[in-house]
Amino acid sequence: MRDCLFCTIVNKEIPCYSVYEDDQCLAFLDISQATLGHTLVVCKEHYPSLLEIPAPLLAHLMKVAQKIAQAQMQRKGVKGINILNNCQKVAGQAIMHFHLHVIPRFTNDDLKFDFQKHSLSPEEFLELASEIKKSLV
Amino acid sequence: MRDCLFCTIVNKEIPCYSVYEDDQCLAFLDISQATLGHTLVVCKEHYPSLLEIPAPLLAHLMKVAQKIAQAQMQRKGVKGINILNNCQKVAGQAIMHFHLHVIPRFTNDDLKFDFQKHSLSPEEFLELASEIKKSLV
Repeated sequence: MRDCLFCTIVNKEIPCYSVYEDDQCLAFLDISQATLGHTLVVCKEHYPSLLEIPAPLLAHLMKVAQKIAQAQMQRKGVKGINILNNCQKVAGQAIMHFHLHVIPRFTNDDLKFDFQKHSLSPEEFLELASEIKKSLV
Repeated sequence: MRDCLFCTIVNKEIPCYSVYEDDQCLAFLDISQATLGHTLVVCKEHYPSLLEIPAPLLAHLMKVAQKIAQAQMQRKGVKGINILNNCQKVAGQAIMHFHLHVIPRFTNDDLKFDFQKHSLSPEEFLELASEIKKSLV
């Protein structure tokens, strides 16, 4: 898509630090490294987000993310991995072209996923679960 | 597996607030709600983490997570979604049984993914990319 940064990278109009490529996706280092080795797995075809990407393509990208995670674990100091998808701006999605983050984790690195915890009653849990179930098709 | 919390939930020995179930996975509300509707997608068979789960099963769970994300977007106030896998303790994995987090996001919710950014030289980027590539099989 015109004016999409990731499409221009996929089309090799802008260079990247590539890690992996196949017919459906490209993986390259995020220019903003959350930790050293932070990699993006991007579909070659343009889909704005998790909401639009076809399920089989999503499944393929997740398999590639797993392979990259397994490879990262062999690097010195890497003790864990986060796989993250941000869907929509409110969730931190900066580029509206679907991508998975593969983020290697190190002891005492400075990455924080700050999860505030909400306490709910059993009734509130049941209400929430049924709210989600009724939209599931 | 004995002494695995998610295995006991999958085996219905401990109740949960279920959202979705099929032959390969179970999805239920996280007892610690990062935001309202925070759901876990758990494989029925026991695999400790992203490193061990078979790729086809991982792909299936990701498709289910997408469906749940699409359903969540129909709820009032939900403006986005994060899909997250924490692999190993250093990455925040609390239960050593593979699971995906599906976290609905709301305007001005209190969830923070605090990404410290590292600046690298082109040489450092190239070195990192080749380090990852050489472990990819």
